[in-house]
Amino acid sequence: MTDLTLANAALLPLGQDGPRRIERGWLRIENDRIAALGEGPAPEGGAIEDLGGRLITPALVDCHTHLVYGGSRAREFEMRLEGASYEEIARAGGGILATVTATRAASEDDLVASALPRLDCLLAEGAGTVEVKSGYGLTVEDELKMLRAARRLGRERPVRIVTSWLAAHALPPEYTGRAEAYIDEVAIAGLRAAHAEGLVDAVDGFCEGIAFSPAQMARIFDVAAELGLPVKLHAEQLSHLGGSQLVAERGGLSADHVEHADAADAAALARAGAAAVLLPGAFYTLRETQMPPVAAFREAGTAMALATDCNPGTSPLTSLLLTMNMAATLFRLTPDECLRGVTANGAQALGLADCGRLEPGMRADLAVWDIAQPAELTYRIGFNPLHARYFEGRKC
Amino acid sequence: MTDLTLANAALLPLGQDGPRRIERGWLRIENDRIAALGEGPAPEGGAIEDLGGRLITPALVDCHTHLVYGGSRAREFEMRLEGASYEEIARAGGGILATVTATRAASEDDLVASALPRLDCLLAEGAGTVEVKSGYGLTVEDELKMLRAARRLGRERPVRIVTSWLAAHALPPEYTGRAEAYIDEVAIAGLRAAHAEGLVDAVDGFCEGIAFSPAQMARIFDVAAELGLPVKLHAEQLSHLGGSQLVAERGGLSADHVEHADAADAAALARAGAAAVLLPGAFYTLRETQMPPVAAFREAGTAMALATDCNPGTSPLTSLLLTMNMAATLFRLTPDECLRGVTANGAQALGLADCGRLEPGMRADLAVWDIAQPAELTYRIGFNPLHARYFEGRKC
Ligand SMILES: [Zn+2]
Ligand SMILES: [Zn+2]
Repeated sequence: MTDLTLANAALLPLGQDGPRRIERGWLRIENDRIAALGEGPAPEGGAIEDLGGRLITPALVDCHTHLVYGGSRAREFEMRLEGASYEEIARAGGGILATVTATRAASEDDLVASALPRLDCLLAEGAGTVEVKSGYGLTVEDELKMLRAARRLGRERPVRIVTSWLAAHALPPEYTGRAEAYIDEVAIAGLRAAHAEGLVDAVDGFCEGIAFSPAQMARIFDVAAELGLPVKLHAEQLSHLGGSQLVAERGGLSADHVEHADAADAAALARAGAAAVLLPGAFYTLRETQMPPVAAFREAGTAMALATDCNPGTSPLTSLLLTMNMAATLFRLTPDECLRGVTANGAQALGLADCGRLEPGMRADLAVWDIAQPAELTYRIGFNPLHARYFEGRKC
Repeated sequence: MTDLTLANAALLPLGQDGPRRIERGWLRIENDRIAALGEGPAPEGGAIEDLGGRLITPALVDCHTHLVYGGSRAREFEMRLEGASYEEIARAGGGILATVTATRAASEDDLVASALPRLDCLLAEGAGTVEVKSGYGLTVEDELKMLRAARRLGRERPVRIVTSWLAAHALPPEYTGRAEAYIDEVAIAGLRAAHAEGLVDAVDGFCEGIAFSPAQMARIFDVAAELGLPVKLHAEQLSHLGGSQLVAERGGLSADHVEHADAADAAALARAGAAAVLLPGAFYTLRETQMPPVAAFREAGTAMALATDCNPGTSPLTSLLLTMNMAATLFRLTPDECLRGVTANGAQALGLADCGRLEPGMRADLAVWDIAQPAELTYRIGFNPLHARYFEGRKC
């Protein structure tokens, strides 16, 4: 049972009300929760740890990852840079199907073992909550295996894992020309099985010309609603197909990527309380030029979250700090927006009301940083100033 | 006295002759040098360390940094993203002169203390040699202070520090309109003083419309030649002023940035044995669109080196691995070119013949990586697979 006051610290509460910043204050942990916080010297009583003026923020939230997968795509990355064509790479077994093949061949243990170093990298930078999607199995059993591996990550490390069912990620070759059958036999049948096993926290899909249509996603979302599961989408990444509007209509959690979203999408998401999840790692890796409509999101009051999109093809990125710098550099987000994107707004994008902010009653998932100014978290590139991480009130 | 064989390892020698890659081999260290290396099981005798199939490369070389400076520019970064104009930032004391003011105000101890965390970040990713420039003092005494701090870094940590005299970085306000006087009184007089104190390994300058002309740089290079010091330039970053040709004419070490260099520059550098140092961190941070002429460098056989350009304004980057990924993603270098850029070609850019490759007689400055394929070093973003670093034959 933790009973500890962190004293002599700067605090960024990141709540919607309350102070924007406490220059010198304290935060009291009781058990796994934040009991109180305030300005000035810490109240007497109980154990006190002096943080020497360091900065406390909520532990970071990575609200969109594909952290669990089999194999490596480093060779494909190399072939492309050496001038191989997409056909040559496909013939060499590259692309998303390379990951599907490797993921199907991997055991649950293999998937856990290969994901742990990536997870550790996120934790070393202060993450406390990490979302993990299925989507590289594309059979009922292999999708379940991925989410079982994801759940196990949360038992192997002090971190909260939130899962998403993403069978509607790509159409496997055995279903070519039979997308509706895939949706019934894998995406929906598997969702029911995964939900029955307690493996699903939300339902996701890749809503794009090269993947699944809004009408196809709506069929899966109907089952999500029946099971009481929230929905979200990879939407408006390569084209404007209407995924954001579908998320808004269904009262979903988030529309992710959204480079091609427009002002109407921004307004619809804001009205529905859904977040726009920006994924600058994919934008950077793909050398995209279409920027997400940041001004429209600001105007509409759409919550902007940021995430690594950690995946082997388009964003082999395992750093939320670097994600923040990329969002500032490439999308012109302010450092304050970047920090909200990986804390309060990341939590909102996962439907979590008990983390991402420093407020009494919230989980004591904290990051303590060895920096003088909060903007340094976003400004520096490839530097990790984490001093300590607290998970459920315990230093780890 | 080290006497050790690293066995059961993959090796990337990176020499111009010899094997391109040893899949399973060994490397023998005697004292601070590589004594021998080969394929297959390690020869009997002496201490043997089994590396379990891990990859040995030369320790990395960061051949262009401004690692020593005072202050932080995080607030300026934030102001710019919050919409402040360049005038407002200048009025708030921003820009390079902010760093000059803070560097002048800092003691040598302050400069060492603030640079060490940045240096540690480079070492944690396997760096063994780091170049450090002056250039934020802009008085004789403050430039000397910076290089004294740089030399001290090499005593505080197991790393080889190589210094560059960069008084010709910017014209300080007290010399406005008197650039020639600055060159005589600070850039040249200071160079003689710094050289007499053993503080200078090479002479550098910022050859650009907003800084110093080739003719001005040539005056400083004349003194460098008299003192027997090699030269290099920040050249062709924002415009094509002829800095690369000047470096080539003077038999210099490198032309750095070179986004605006052309095929004739590439050929001249290659003929002179000078390297082109690419700095993708600055390209990324400044959101540049003019790519360096990589095809021309390949065609001419110009050695391409890569470096962080770690500096508080245009590249607050402290990761060579990320530099490699940026060079691949933004400049389309292959993973092999990226690795050469931070090893063999980085050493060449510093005029060092005893590091950057795995060959008998070279310094035993090594990086051991926990990866299966060399391309993973470039492919991953924000992930550090370093297993161990050896400096002068000792594990550290
Ligand atoms: Zn994704
Ligand atoms: Zn520079």
